[in-house]
Amino acid sequence: MMISDERAKKLAQAHANAMADESTPLIRNCWYVAAFSSDLKPGELLSRRLLDVNVVLYRSGDGVAALRDRCAHRSFPLSGGYVEDGNVVCGYHGFRYDASGRCVHVPTQGERCPAGIGVRSFPVQERAPHVWIWMGEPALADPALIPTADWMQESSQWVAGHGYMHVKANYVHLHENLLDLSHLTYLHAKTFGTPDYASAPFDIEVGDETFIVRRTVSPTRLPPIYAEPTGMVGVDAARIVTSTFVSPALSFTELLLRNLGGTGLSGSEFHLKTAQIVTPESADTLHYHFTVVRDFAPEDQAMTRFILDSIKSAFVEDVYALERIAEVRRDEPDFHEKSVASDRAGVAMRKYMKTLAGRETQVGVPA
Amino acid sequence: MMISDERAKKLAQAHANAMADESTPLIRNCWYVAAFSSDLKPGELLSRRLLDVNVVLYRSGDGVAALRDRCAHRSFPLSGGYVEDGNVVCGYHGFRYDASGRCVHVPTQGERCPAGIGVRSFPVQERAPHVWIWMGEPALADPALIPTADWMQESSQWVAGHGYMHVKANYVHLHENLLDLSHLTYLHAKTFGTPDYASAPFDIEVGDETFIVRRTVSPTRLPPIYAEPTGMVGVDAARIVTSTFVSPALSFTELLLRNLGGTGLSGSEFHLKTAQIVTPESADTLHYHFTVVRDFAPEDQAMTRFILDSIKSAFVEDVYALERIAEVRRDEPDFHEKSVASDRAGVAMRKYMKTLAGRETQVGVPA
Amino acid sequence: MMISDERAKKLAQAHANAMADESTPLIRNCWYVAAFSSDLKPGELLSRRLLDVNVVLYRSGDGVAALRDRCAHRSFPLSGGYVEDGNVVCGYHGFRYDASGRCVHVPTQGERCPAGIGVRSFPVQERAPHVWIWMGEPALADPALIPTADWMQESSQWVAGHGYMHVKANYVHLHENLLDLSHLTYLHAKTFGTPDYASAPFDIEVGDETFIVRRTVSPTRLPPIYAEPTGMVGVDAARIVTSTFVSPALSFTELLLRNLGGTGLSGSEFHLKTAQIVTPESADTLHYHFTVVRDFAPEDQAMTRFILDSIKSAFVEDVYALERIAEVRRDEPDFHEKSVASDRAGVAMRKYMKTLAGRETQVGVPA
Repeated sequence: MMISDERAKKLAQAHANAMADESTPLIRNCWYVAAFSSDLKPGELLSRRLLDVNVVLYRSGDGVAALRDRCAHRSFPLSGGYVEDGNVVCGYHGFRYDASGRCVHVPTQGERCPAGIGVRSFPVQERAPHVWIWMGEPALADPALIPTADWMQESSQWVAGHGYMHVKANYVHLHENLLDLSHLTYLHAKTFGTPDYASAPFDIEVGDETFIVRRTVSPTRLPPIYAEPTGMVGVDAARIVTSTFVSPALSFTELLLRNLGGTGLSGSEFHLKTAQIVTPESADTLHYHFTVVRDFAPEDQAMTRFILDSIKSAFVEDVYALERIAEVRRDEPDFHEKSVASDRAGVAMRKYMKTLAGRETQVGVPA
Repeated sequence: MMISDERAKKLAQAHANAMADESTPLIRNCWYVAAFSSDLKPGELLSRRLLDVNVVLYRSGDGVAALRDRCAHRSFPLSGGYVEDGNVVCGYHGFRYDASGRCVHVPTQGERCPAGIGVRSFPVQERAPHVWIWMGEPALADPALIPTADWMQESSQWVAGHGYMHVKANYVHLHENLLDLSHLTYLHAKTFGTPDYASAPFDIEVGDETFIVRRTVSPTRLPPIYAEPTGMVGVDAARIVTSTFVSPALSFTELLLRNLGGTGLSGSEFHLKTAQIVTPESADTLHYHFTVVRDFAPEDQAMTRFILDSIKSAFVEDVYALERIAEVRRDEPDFHEKSVASDRAGVAMRKYMKTLAGRETQVGVPA
Repeated sequence: MMISDERAKKLAQAHANAMADESTPLIRNCWYVAAFSSDLKPGELLSRRLLDVNVVLYRSGDGVAALRDRCAHRSFPLSGGYVEDGNVVCGYHGFRYDASGRCVHVPTQGERCPAGIGVRSFPVQERAPHVWIWMGEPALADPALIPTADWMQESSQWVAGHGYMHVKANYVHLHENLLDLSHLTYLHAKTFGTPDYASAPFDIEVGDETFIVRRTVSPTRLPPIYAEPTGMVGVDAARIVTSTFVSPALSFTELLLRNLGGTGLSGSEFHLKTAQIVTPESADTLHYHFTVVRDFAPEDQAMTRFILDSIKSAFVEDVYALERIAEVRRDEPDFHEKSVASDRAGVAMRKYMKTLAGRETQVGVPA
């Protein structure tokens, strides 16, 4: 049996307390992805809980509008009503709101619409294929802060696939999972992983707002998910992965595959990049959007499907692990996890997120 | 975006705080309907949770008995036992209680039944087709206070149909829903409602214990639920509705339909009355019994069925709305709803219920 | 109606407060059964929650190991990994623990395994067909304290059957149920019970750590569950039952059936003993293992199956009662149960368990 002594326990406690986790207030002053552009159909209302607020999204005349999904009158979800002339009509008593959230008509009042009735609206920016929302202080919602990348947008250079999963875990733990891919050998043994992955050399870059892990597995044999699309079945390859924490809303996984064996589909280098898009629904649940792009075989739609399906199979394993861990942490909160050298980027990122959260004045949700 | 300023927020808060809602203690000194008479079969035990107390009801020799549904010995639900000679026998160790709740036999004790063991009984009055119960201070349970009406009882003048639904919402919100029927145009667009309903003229009568809304929609076209039984399909009609809050246990919806077009099934006036019978199960759930009567086509049982089915379809919409609202209010408690002129009766009723609840000494549940 | 006066209420309250129930801390310094020996397959991991701790059990080289089921690194359940060379490998990042809980390998660290990382291990003793575990202070885990009996072990004298049920109730209430079998007449009217059981003479023996109830039902007719295996169908019999509380982990039910009618399968006395093995999963749930042995018809496997199935049918009734009672107690905590003379052993046992629990320093769960 192994029981930590008092001093080791205090160190572990201090270590755990410095890092963001599910007990840390959600970071609100940040652009998050609310939905894929394709989720918003003209004339329809989309309800989605984001950072503990129910939001209704819809295409108004001049863009996407996002309102609090709760009528100011008797709290019926506005998403239970309908869109008419760019306004949202409540499905209970017919209160009508414009895209700014102002109530512009009350049926029992005829022409005399009472002043001062409205619901909160949220800044929204569409960068197809993603719709970004700002759930924090509206005055700080600078669109220049949207943490996107060229390859995330629709383009001819990159061919993209998209997916979504709902996860019962805190966003911090997903970001940490994405920064330490040594788990590929174990959690993803049947999908992404190979036995040599966990022990491959890695390099960690940590700065004030920089959290990057680069891992080089070479020479290696690729798992089918990568070997098949690239034609590198049964040949030596280099697998170089860069994991980057971009913002509380986004991490990148950038993969370079190089053919060391002299055969292959076309050319000797292949790039696959994944935008890991993380939006807290609550402290304990999150929306996981992902966009995967590649720079080869652009016309091959079966390959797009194969890659997407393979990635989803692996992400299901991550979701399983994160949800089991969330249950354990909830059942037994008095526990202090230990970290090792390969956690350095994740630990620094979690400290940064804790600092960011601490800086935000917690003001509750305006009506 | 619309954020209320500090003063508006305080006014909204004061407005919300003056009204009863799910945070207000349940009003106990009131006759509530526990069940339909037909729910109580001779020799059977009926378990029902009423105002946060599990109650077992059964037909004893001389009427209906209602006991706390929990054996005084080891807490087994008495409803898990059986009725014998007008007594209830516990299904765990055989403790036997008479209709007053006194323990009259303990099997392991032979003839020496210990004194001082018993369960609480509740005053009950049957007014077929309804069984009323008093969950408050027993000394105040005056049967003259039972808030019934002639037409609610079985009679030859009125032909009746009955229904029941379980609702995951607080009773105050159902009463308020029943006082403001402007929601018919929106929530009931496919059942009860017509487009002109919400903007029709209405008259509100509010007194110390009087909360009435009268609404006249005329000329109008009736929805199929009313047009078909009365034969007023495609003709002008007047639709006059009186909504009355009777007690925390009961609201009335009284409907007068007048044929303005000269055709119709029989006669030119039709009455439909609904006893909206509301019994809190807990602060967050309720039993919704309803009795619908009419004064036409008394022999037409298919019409009884059609009217009942139509009404149930519409009430399902109310239940949907009330349950969604309850979820929203639970998820986001820090929110102050706004009211408009047509809410005057509902707001006054909710203030009255808050006053009633405040007057009752909260004494917990005696054993 | 019957309302206790203030003094009676205080007496009832004092009576209830002196007895252990679901609000009493679990007794940890005690050997409990973690599993049947047969539940532990070589090379497999068994996860089981015991006394509010997730534990993973497996067969290591030299016996059974039990570790906390939570990786020290990022809280993934170790039971989600695999066994290799007598060690457990975490399924997330591959941390490897030996049977003592010490971390012996971290894949990203190569040969430099960090010191001071480990998970708690628990003392375990196998007494086939049972595996016992000590969830309390390790220094007190004396194997001599294991509360087993000769007939519980595998032997040629006794033929055994085994069963398991998960129960949503506190262990104290199951122990009390097992000490007062007067409930056989009511709760088990269709299985174990006969009408004369509850009123049969009984004898209670209570000492410092002794809690025994003996009940003699004679002459009686046996229920099919006993009449059929012993051939005593339709003949007079004596049914003598001894119920013994052995420890918080164990009660015995020992049954002697004597043929008073002169016919029967073989011989005139038959013994059936049940080890009622009770392991708290939490304050509100428990693992119920049972081992039933008999000293007749040792070769008759159909009889083993018949007895086991019959006992399970009756235990399902106990579980039903205990779970209903647990719900009632949870919904309405402010209630003080009454006891009668036949509860004397159970009441004394519950006071003893409360005393035991009070003696243990509540130190939480070490990491």
